[in-house]
Amino acid sequence: MDYGRIEGQIQAELTAVFGDRLTLSPGILEQHGRDESYHPVRAPDAVAFPRSTDEVAQAMRICTKHRVPVVPFGAGTSLEGHISAVHGGLCIDFAEMNEVLSVSAEDMDATVQPGVRRRQLNEYLRDTGLFFSVDPGADASIGGMASTRASGTNAVRYGTMREVVMGLTVVLADGRVIETGGRSRKSAAGYDLTRLLVGAEGTLGVITSLTVRLFPQPEQILSAVVTFDTMGDAVTSVIETMQMGVQVARIEFVDEVQIDAINRYSKLNLALKPTLFLEFHGSEIVTREQIGIVTEICEGNGGGDFEWASQLEDRNRLWRARHDAAYAALAVRPGCRAVVTDICVPISQLSECILEARRLIDASPLTGMNVGHAGDGNFHSVLLVDPKDKSEVETAKNVNAQLVELALSKGGTCTGEHGIGLGKREFLAQEAGEGIDVMRDIKTALDPLGILNPGKIM
Amino acid sequence: MDYGRIEGQIQAELTAVFGDRLTLSPGILEQHGRDESYHPVRAPDAVAFPRSTDEVAQAMRICTKHRVPVVPFGAGTSLEGHISAVHGGLCIDFAEMNEVLSVSAEDMDATVQPGVRRRQLNEYLRDTGLFFSVDPGADASIGGMASTRASGTNAVRYGTMREVVMGLTVVLADGRVIETGGRSRKSAAGYDLTRLLVGAEGTLGVITSLTVRLFPQPEQILSAVVTFDTMGDAVTSVIETMQMGVQVARIEFVDEVQIDAINRYSKLNLALKPTLFLEFHGSEIVTREQIGIVTEICEGNGGGDFEWASQLEDRNRLWRARHDAAYAALAVRPGCRAVVTDICVPISQLSECILEARRLIDASPLTGMNVGHAGDGNFHSVLLVDPKDKSEVETAKNVNAQLVELALSKGGTCTGEHGIGLGKREFLAQEAGEGIDVMRDIKTALDPLGILNPGKIM
Repeated sequence: MDYGRIEGQIQAELTAVFGDRLTLSPGILEQHGRDESYHPVRAPDAVAFPRSTDEVAQAMRICTKHRVPVVPFGAGTSLEGHISAVHGGLCIDFAEMNEVLSVSAEDMDATVQPGVRRRQLNEYLRDTGLFFSVDPGADASIGGMASTRASGTNAVRYGTMREVVMGLTVVLADGRVIETGGRSRKSAAGYDLTRLLVGAEGTLGVITSLTVRLFPQPEQILSAVVTFDTMGDAVTSVIETMQMGVQVARIEFVDEVQIDAINRYSKLNLALKPTLFLEFHGSEIVTREQIGIVTEICEGNGGGDFEWASQLEDRNRLWRARHDAAYAALAVRPGCRAVVTDICVPISQLSECILEARRLIDASPLTGMNVGHAGDGNFHSVLLVDPKDKSEVETAKNVNAQLVELALSKGGTCTGEHGIGLGKREFLAQEAGEGIDVMRDIKTALDPLGILNPGKIM
Repeated sequence: MDYGRIEGQIQAELTAVFGDRLTLSPGILEQHGRDESYHPVRAPDAVAFPRSTDEVAQAMRICTKHRVPVVPFGAGTSLEGHISAVHGGLCIDFAEMNEVLSVSAEDMDATVQPGVRRRQLNEYLRDTGLFFSVDPGADASIGGMASTRASGTNAVRYGTMREVVMGLTVVLADGRVIETGGRSRKSAAGYDLTRLLVGAEGTLGVITSLTVRLFPQPEQILSAVVTFDTMGDAVTSVIETMQMGVQVARIEFVDEVQIDAINRYSKLNLALKPTLFLEFHGSEIVTREQIGIVTEICEGNGGGDFEWASQLEDRNRLWRARHDAAYAALAVRPGCRAVVTDICVPISQLSECILEARRLIDASPLTGMNVGHAGDGNFHSVLLVDPKDKSEVETAKNVNAQLVELALSKGGTCTGEHGIGLGKREFLAQEAGEGIDVMRDIKTALDPLGILNPGKIM
C-alpha cells in the first residue's frame, strides 16, 4: 500500500485540527526538508504547528487512517538527514510547543515541551542554581536531542540524553498517548520504554513532553588549553586523567588542521599542534586539585603551552575556538558542506582510529579535520565536500565507511552521538547484526503501517 | 496451546545437549523454585547448567520447538519471585558460566559471564585499581542484577545497572544470538536494545554475557553515621546535600525501629533515632571538603552524634549495621519472611512517603521498619509476616498497595530497584497505563510463544 499524500480529504481533516497552523507554502516546506547535513532537500507535503499533545494525537489518528508519513521536527540541526521527508507526508514542527512546563529545584528536574531549545532552557534556569547539561554545540531542541540520543562536550561528566531523560509523553502511531518513566531517579518497573524512545529518531512515537535531570551550577568553572607534539600523547593524557578518577567536565581533542581553520576563522593564534581543550567544574578546592593532577599528567606526556582561564570572558575566548570548530571548518572552503564521521570506540583504541582517519584523509583529495570528545572515545572527521560533486561525496562516504569498519573491529560504534538517520543505515545493519531484526520487529509492533519517520534507521 | 513438560522426547533432547548437567532431582528443583521473597516455591521441571552461549541457544531452540518455559537463574537473590517457575519448564542456572572474560584497565570495563557474582568480580578486580560499583546488598549474579535493573546503596553516585551495562550477548526465544551495545562509552546507533533487555527480567531474551563499566577505586573512603530528631530533618539534609552538588557515594536513611533491630542483631548501641549512614569517596582533599559541607548541612538540620570512620575496620563496623538491616529485621521475629516495599519518588516527596509508611505500619498489627536509599528517593518498608498466615500477608500487601498509590500520585514508581516479578504486576499496569500495551506488543514481537520467564512483569 502506498503512502497517502496530503491533499483533498486528508488536507481538509488536518486543516480542521490545525487551521492556519497547517501550511503547504513551498518556502516553508523546503525549509523543513533539510537539516544541517549534506543530505539533499526532501520536503514534506505539509507542516503542522501543534500546540498540545492532543493536537499531535489527532494528527496521528488522521495520518494512521490515511497512511500518511509523519516526521517530527525540532530545530532542524540534525546531521544525518533525520528530518528529511523521503516519503513526503506531514512534518510536525514543535516551534509552538516550546514551554518549560515545570522546574523542581529540590528534585533537580524540569519538564519541558519538545520544542524548547537547549539555550532557552538554560536561560530559564539561570536563577535556580541548576543547569541542563547536555551540550551538542548546536542550539538544538530538547525533543530532537532526545530523539537522536545527543550528547556533546560535557557528556564525559554529566552523561548523554540516555542518562538525563527521566520520562516522556509519547504519541503512538495510532494516536494513543503514553507516559513513560516518571520523575523518580531510578525505576525497575518493567521495560524501559523511555530509553527505547530516546534515540529512536521519531520512528516509534512522537515525543510531546520530556522530564530531564538537571545538575547544580558549579561553584567554579576553569578552562584550559594544552598542546602536544603528537595526538597519541594527547590521548594518553586523556586516558590517564580518566583512570585517576578526575571528573573533568569537558576534555576535547582538536587536531592541527582544525586548529589552523580555527585560527583563520576566529582570528586566533593557537599553536598548530594536537590540542586538548579542558574544563573543570567544582569548588575552588576541587578544581585546584583536579588541575594539579591533570597538569602533571599532561606534562608527563610532553604537553605544554598551557593556557588557563577562570573568568567568563577568558573562558569564552578559549572555548570559542572549540565551539566554532564546525563553522571554522566550513569556512575553509566557502559553499561546501561537511560529511561528518562520528565513530566512538573504547578509549584505548582512540589514538589508532584518529591516526587512521588522518591517513585516510591525507590519502584522499579531500580537506578534513579531526575533533573529538576524547573522554568518551568519540571523534568526528569533518570532511569538506561540494554537495553537487558526487565523486567528492562518495570519497567522503568511503572514508567514513573505512573508519566505521575500523571502529566495529574495536568494539565501537558507527555513531556516538549523531544517530543513524538516512546516512548510516547500512552501518547500523553491519553493527547490529541480527539485532537489526529485533529492531525491525519492534518497529513493526509499534508502527505497523510504517508511518513514523519512514526511511530512517532501517 | 499448553506449555510442554520436560519428559520423554523433550527430556531426551535436552539431555543430548547437557548430559548430566541437566537434572530433575527434586531437591535441586525445589532450590530453584524460590528466591529471597515471600512468594511460595514453584519448582521448574528441570535445571540445566550450560557452559556456553551456544548451549543456551540449543536449549532455547528445543524449548521453542516444544513450547517449554525457560527461566534464567543467577544467584536466586531476587525479591519478587522473579525465578519462580509458575508454568514449570526449564531453569537455566548460570552457576557454570561464571568467568570474568576480560578486563580493560585503560577502558575501565569488564566483560563477564552472567553467573559471575558481584563480590567475585570485585575480588578479581582488586589489583587493577578499579571496582564494580553496583551494590544491592546481596551477593547477586551480574546477569541477575542486569535482568532486574538492580541498584543499591551507591547508585546515588555511580548509577544503577541501567547506567553501567554497556553491552550484552543475548539468546532470543528462537535461539538466535545477538550482541547489543558494545564497548564504547556512548552510542546513537539505533534502538537501545541493551537498555530494553536490562530490567526485562528474562522475559525478552536470555543474557549470556555482559560488558559493564568500572570505576577507579577511590583514594580514600570515609564513613559517617548521623542521627536526627525527626525523619524530615534527615531527608532535608539529604536534599540540601544533593543540591550542593556533593557527590556522596552512599547516603542511606534508617528509621528508629530498624535501628532497634540492628542494635539487637549486631550487638550495637546506636541511638534510637532517625539516622543517616554516609560514605564519601575521593582524594583526601575532596572527602575532607565534602565532609565539611555535609556536617554543616546536618548540623543546620539538628543532626548530631556524628560518628566518623576512615579505617576499613571502623567503616565496616559502621556499615555492618546498614548492611545487616534485612537480616536484623528478620531476626526480630524468628521464622518470619519479609514483604518489602520498594517505592521511589522525587526526593522532595520522600519525607511525606516515609511518614505515611510509618503511619500505615503503626495502624496495622505488623512490625515494620523503614530503610532507604535516600539520595535516590527510594526506600523500603520491611514488613514482617508469617508466610503461612494469609491475613498477615494480605495486610502487608495492602500497606504496599497504599504506598504505591501514594508514590504514583507523586510522579514516582512502584519499584525503584527490586523489579516487578510476580508481586508487582498489578502495580505496573497501574503505573504504565497504556504503556503496558506497548510492553505487551514488544513481548509478543520478541517471544511470540510466551516461553521466556512466563507470568512475570505482565
